[in-house]
Amino acid sequence: MSERLYNFSAGPAVLPEPVLAEAQRDLMALPGVGASILEISHRSKTFDDIIRQAEFNLRTLLAIPDDYAVLFLQGGARLVFSMIPMNLGTGGKGTLDYIITGSWGKYAAQEAAKFGEVHTVWDGNATNYDRLPRQSDLKLDPQAAYVYYVSNETIQGVQFASEPASGDVPLVCDASSDFLSRPVDVRKYGLLYACAQKNAGPAGVTVVILRKDLLARSHDSLPGYLNFQIHADQRSLWNTPPTFAVYVLMLVTKWLLTDVGGIDKMLERNRQKAKLLYEAIDASGGFYAGHAQRDGRSLMNVTFRLPSDELTEKFVQGAKERGLTDLKGHRSVGGIRASIYNAMPVAGVEKLREFMDEFAATNT
Amino acid sequence: MSERLYNFSAGPAVLPEPVLAEAQRDLMALPGVGASILEISHRSKTFDDIIRQAEFNLRTLLAIPDDYAVLFLQGGARLVFSMIPMNLGTGGKGTLDYIITGSWGKYAAQEAAKFGEVHTVWDGNATNYDRLPRQSDLKLDPQAAYVYYVSNETIQGVQFASEPASGDVPLVCDASSDFLSRPVDVRKYGLLYACAQKNAGPAGVTVVILRKDLLARSHDSLPGYLNFQIHADQRSLWNTPPTFAVYVLMLVTKWLLTDVGGIDKMLERNRQKAKLLYEAIDASGGFYAGHAQRDGRSLMNVTFRLPSDELTEKFVQGAKERGLTDLKGHRSVGGIRASIYNAMPVAGVEKLREFMDEFAATNT
Repeated sequence: MSERLYNFSAGPAVLPEPVLAEAQRDLMALPGVGASILEISHRSKTFDDIIRQAEFNLRTLLAIPDDYAVLFLQGGARLVFSMIPMNLGTGGKGTLDYIITGSWGKYAAQEAAKFGEVHTVWDGNATNYDRLPRQSDLKLDPQAAYVYYVSNETIQGVQFASEPASGDVPLVCDASSDFLSRPVDVRKYGLLYACAQKNAGPAGVTVVILRKDLLARSHDSLPGYLNFQIHADQRSLWNTPPTFAVYVLMLVTKWLLTDVGGIDKMLERNRQKAKLLYEAIDASGGFYAGHAQRDGRSLMNVTFRLPSDELTEKFVQGAKERGLTDLKGHRSVGGIRASIYNAMPVAGVEKLREFMDEFAATNT
Repeated sequence: MSERLYNFSAGPAVLPEPVLAEAQRDLMALPGVGASILEISHRSKTFDDIIRQAEFNLRTLLAIPDDYAVLFLQGGARLVFSMIPMNLGTGGKGTLDYIITGSWGKYAAQEAAKFGEVHTVWDGNATNYDRLPRQSDLKLDPQAAYVYYVSNETIQGVQFASEPASGDVPLVCDASSDFLSRPVDVRKYGLLYACAQKNAGPAGVTVVILRKDLLARSHDSLPGYLNFQIHADQRSLWNTPPTFAVYVLMLVTKWLLTDVGGIDKMLERNRQKAKLLYEAIDASGGFYAGHAQRDGRSLMNVTFRLPSDELTEKFVQGAKERGLTDLKGHRSVGGIRASIYNAMPVAGVEKLREFMDEFAATNT
């Protein structure tokens, strides 16, 4: 087996080692089945058990009520960007309200504008998405079809501590990069979704959790694959689901339940990890400048800049030599981004913290 | 390792053992990378090399000309059912011509009817899709936006020996269940596509090969993920592709090139396998009744019925006891379906042939 490094990629991202080990062990043939998970029919009892177990694990971890459907879809967040206005847009009867706190909210709003009247409730662009709105900043339309926001902006590293209040208007959340990292009160949402490749599994599957009464908004005229109602009616088996990705998601959620001990425990560990890095930033006397304002700091993506591009490059290289990879920030923010999702071990973050302290001391 | 059985599933289906072995070996960490294929960024050089290699292998195997794009998409054939009329439909200026030789063509035409005027050129429904049209049966409209057909109908087991002639109208083909099983002259097609989970890889990735001049028909108003032009411009990296599925597809196409020795060799082996089973049907004195008429018989899905439901059930059980699984036919055809895709070893088909002969002899 090749040596494993500490991979701070923003996604696809690190997975729990016990999950990889189990997937590896059974890759030639699932126990008692005689075929690989890659080879079995999605209509088989074996796969049905896997996808139902994945759903059960999610329902257990997040206490998802029975009047919410859980869907496993393909196409990533980008496809859901279209599905939301096309399904929930109520045929132009209400505006589509978007709170834009970073790149992914912006892309979602651009897509929605093809299908309805988008109302930008708030946009953090003026300060390069380094902060979050206060509730009083949000002029929400009580007649809107829905209110959309991104709980954690992966590129900028800003994260809502709790969801904005949307009154009776269905709240829609892209939780791609903090899904399963902390408890959420699903009842506050009309729809909550996440692509798996940050905290929940590999690329290729997207989880959509939505209140079943909203399914009535899906019209038969929609492209079939984009119709939430069809997927809910067929329990995500209308067409062949991404069987392997669902299987790994099942293993990841099992790991969360049994190895980690649930979402509260996961949040504790995530807080501990984030604290290690934000402390290093705050203790550096300005050598490291955090991108996000303090009250909007993400527990998942820690973004900061160094005094120069040369030092940034030197930091990335020095980290790599210590087995800490994928730390380069997104070009729109610059600097460094350390993505420390659920599966990033505390030991990896400690190693990065040590390197940050050492690098600041020797380069100031 | 658990024992592997001979799995005749129609899809997801058997994969080559050397592919599974390599994926298993490297599942914890790709050599020299320090992270699993499940964990690496789709923007990394490692993954870029993988997806370009997958494309290169396909271009080599099928001699795909440079003026054709090769896309790796999510959503399966079902999503492509919508994308084709939405992208190629030329805004209602020409009819959408569908040749319906089985279930998948029917579903595709139903979906297309949401987006344009579908003209059913031919429909084999009257004889439960047991045959193919002759070229003279096809009343094609020279003004049509495209002509659509399914090269191999997975459920019914009917396969075109060669593509219908469509003149100057772009020919569109769902080759999901015979892709890479035989040479095709890509130049005859406007668009040729296949979900991977029969011959090309696991569920979760769909290959679309299309002539680049047709990209001009894709409008900006389409849902982003459904726009062929975007995927072609971004070389399938507009959003996060299904990285693992693309990786396995790369391994499968490598296996075809190196272990099998190319598509011609693959076709030879596929003919040999199909012959074993059709001979058993024809030699059974009517005990086995093939569903497809002889000149439409599929090399991929061999469909036949037994004299009674009781005998069918006994056949399925007896086969299972010999390690031959997933032989039950689709409910719309009944009987038995043996899917013998590229990766099904000759030894598996020989074992099934022996069982067929023995079962017929002892139950006649």
